[in-house]
Amino acid sequence: MTVYSPALDTTATRTLDLGPAVELVSKEEGHRQPLAPEFVSAEDFSPLEVAYDFGRVRREDIEAGPRNIWRYKKLLPVPSRVEEIPNTEPGCTRLVRADRLAKALGLRRVWVKDDTGNPTHSFKDRVVAVALAAAREFGFDTLACPSTGNLANAVAAAAARAGWQSVVLIPSSLERAKILTTAVYDGALIAVDGNYDDVNRLATQLAAENEGWAFVNVNVRPYYSEGSKTLAFEVAEQLGWRLPEQIVVPIASGSQLTKVDKGFRELGQLGLVEETPYRVYGAQATGCSPVSTAFRNGHDVVQPVKPDTIARSLAIGNPADGPYVLDTVHRTGGSIEDVTDEEVVAGIRLLARTEGIFTETAGGVTVATAKKLVETGKLDPDAETVLLITGDGLKTLDALEDRIGPKATVPPSADAVREALGG
Amino acid sequence: MTVYSPALDTTATRTLDLGPAVELVSKEEGHRQPLAPEFVSAEDFSPLEVAYDFGRVRREDIEAGPRNIWRYKKLLPVPSRVEEIPNTEPGCTRLVRADRLAKALGLRRVWVKDDTGNPTHSFKDRVVAVALAAAREFGFDTLACPSTGNLANAVAAAAARAGWQSVVLIPSSLERAKILTTAVYDGALIAVDGNYDDVNRLATQLAAENEGWAFVNVNVRPYYSEGSKTLAFEVAEQLGWRLPEQIVVPIASGSQLTKVDKGFRELGQLGLVEETPYRVYGAQATGCSPVSTAFRNGHDVVQPVKPDTIARSLAIGNPADGPYVLDTVHRTGGSIEDVTDEEVVAGIRLLARTEGIFTETAGGVTVATAKKLVETGKLDPDAETVLLITGDGLKTLDALEDRIGPKATVPPSADAVREALGG
Repeated sequence: MTVYSPALDTTATRTLDLGPAVELVSKEEGHRQPLAPEFVSAEDFSPLEVAYDFGRVRREDIEAGPRNIWRYKKLLPVPSRVEEIPNTEPGCTRLVRADRLAKALGLRRVWVKDDTGNPTHSFKDRVVAVALAAAREFGFDTLACPSTGNLANAVAAAAARAGWQSVVLIPSSLERAKILTTAVYDGALIAVDGNYDDVNRLATQLAAENEGWAFVNVNVRPYYSEGSKTLAFEVAEQLGWRLPEQIVVPIASGSQLTKVDKGFRELGQLGLVEETPYRVYGAQATGCSPVSTAFRNGHDVVQPVKPDTIARSLAIGNPADGPYVLDTVHRTGGSIEDVTDEEVVAGIRLLARTEGIFTETAGGVTVATAKKLVETGKLDPDAETVLLITGDGLKTLDALEDRIGPKATVPPSADAVREALGG
Repeated sequence: MTVYSPALDTTATRTLDLGPAVELVSKEEGHRQPLAPEFVSAEDFSPLEVAYDFGRVRREDIEAGPRNIWRYKKLLPVPSRVEEIPNTEPGCTRLVRADRLAKALGLRRVWVKDDTGNPTHSFKDRVVAVALAAAREFGFDTLACPSTGNLANAVAAAAARAGWQSVVLIPSSLERAKILTTAVYDGALIAVDGNYDDVNRLATQLAAENEGWAFVNVNVRPYYSEGSKTLAFEVAEQLGWRLPEQIVVPIASGSQLTKVDKGFRELGQLGLVEETPYRVYGAQATGCSPVSTAFRNGHDVVQPVKPDTIARSLAIGNPADGPYVLDTVHRTGGSIEDVTDEEVVAGIRLLARTEGIFTETAGGVTVATAKKLVETGKLDPDAETVLLITGDGLKTLDALEDRIGPKATVPPSADAVREALGG
């Protein structure tokens, strides 16, 4: 255990600096406990969430900050001088006015939040950056996760940049391309003979047994998940410090959707934006739609499912934040829908064709769900709508395989090209 | 020819607005001619370049502009209100302080200009955006190119976003993954039965025959190539309005290297930065190193070669701007080197391992060349150095195939993981 020995400082011997974060609170019964690398309340067994004492936060302070998520450091559980620590500097991705997509969807005004511009081309860079910053403060120096895709890339890249060790667990059957995109960062990529459930169980076991590893989505999850708030902060700032009327968010664990809502609320509470009403909409693939199904049936618990969809980055059959997603959607007056894999591909193609943005399957879910929500009258066509595009099409090329290709194959002659183009 | 009929306005009936651009000038003998979609001087057969009347340009004007290349519109051949036209909004990518890479290379201070954050993840989005903006002003509504990679992605995406037709010509033997990343934008992707030389010849023929198509790197090349200056502008602005002492630039046609130099000179001439000395270094893959070979042999002409390298985005055997690259490197006191495919892969891995940035093979060429230039004493280890990383590793995964992989494959047990990690 030499290389991976526990490296935790004890909070008794040093002052913890996680900026405005003051304690952890259990989501169900509000039990409070000190900030620590823990994720479940020992009192009521519900998830722990970070509580803050924000003090005064002004737009000018944020605007004067760096062009990445650390401009919002006063709203995150990270050290006060976090921007001085080497990190991948995610965030401040484009908010694109999407008039051609809007027209195709039958909406008046649409904005696409294009998170493919992040360092490893998904929103996971945001949550991992916050996790690493908090984990560093707790004394960790190894970042770990189980993952088959975006999270693996983000963890391995962030650890490399910080000079940390990473431990990424993947099923050994994973496609070669997905192995390469994590292996290149040269951390400890471990292939496990088993399916993704086996890998996940192993990660939970290792997180419990080894204090030296920060499993981003396990023992430091309360900090990690706060990173998703930066999507809300950026949308509001990029709109000129105001909230959109409608936002469509894909659902995997459900954490992102609830944190986007939390981000909007915090901005309102701090007076950084006017507290105008907004509706939050959830998007799932039909092949893994436990939250959408619960919403449709009027349930407040979510029945686990066995995922079967091309939208693998959303394929969490037992979403931890499912009930909180239902709360958020009900409270804001939104809705949840799910779409078939065929619709997902159509969504990817629609966004690419109209706006030149190539999203992974999760983004296809968001676009296709928006289309369905318009068609069923649940999205108001006259209200301004934001779509969260959280990952890159280069990561899920297999979803397009056998579905698209050249318009024509011709001999090398100008006439042949013209003829192929209907000349 | 209905869909693709020529759509050119005549400049006689409208005023051309290409911002500060005033005319075209031939590079060899300085012959002047009006702005038009032409690329070779009829007088001396040398390439045409855009000439400007910049007037006064202030840092404040630039800083108040949008967070993309249009903040530099007063230094580009684009319409005065270019930012109001739908486009992919490339640029303002990260300049990353790379201390861990610097240490590995034996340099005191290194910055990585990470252009993987562009909309289609290469610097080509910059040049294509400028080409489209100028082509629009000339009355075109179809964007075209021959390409096997980054350029095809950028052209198809930019045309989609603008609501233009695109015509992208590729060899029919191209790998499926590279076909998908362009086909998704739903333009006219035409597979040509022939090799890349056949496709290129066909493009030149079509550009000459069809006035309705703007071939970005043929008939609107003078405008297109100016887009590379934005890399220089951003580096200088991101350094706090000053020039770096050394910059390493990959060489394909050689255009990028000469335009980065041109950008630095324009900033100095306009008083936007102090005119401090800088050295420009060129990077090639040994399997396609005509400019490096000419430099080594002290020639001022470049002997064409037949490319054979994994750095396909740099594999131009007869680089149009080769002689101008030699001029630039000599004038600034830089140097040119080339590196083997093995070194290219090592360069990719070094950048990923130290900074969490995954580059395509062209970036591997840049990093490996920097290493070689340090080892041979041509880069000053004490001078501040910028490395241009111009494209994304997700585009050239094949270069890593069979070279990297998991550290270990283990059964699903915590003990097995610990053992694999040397516990």
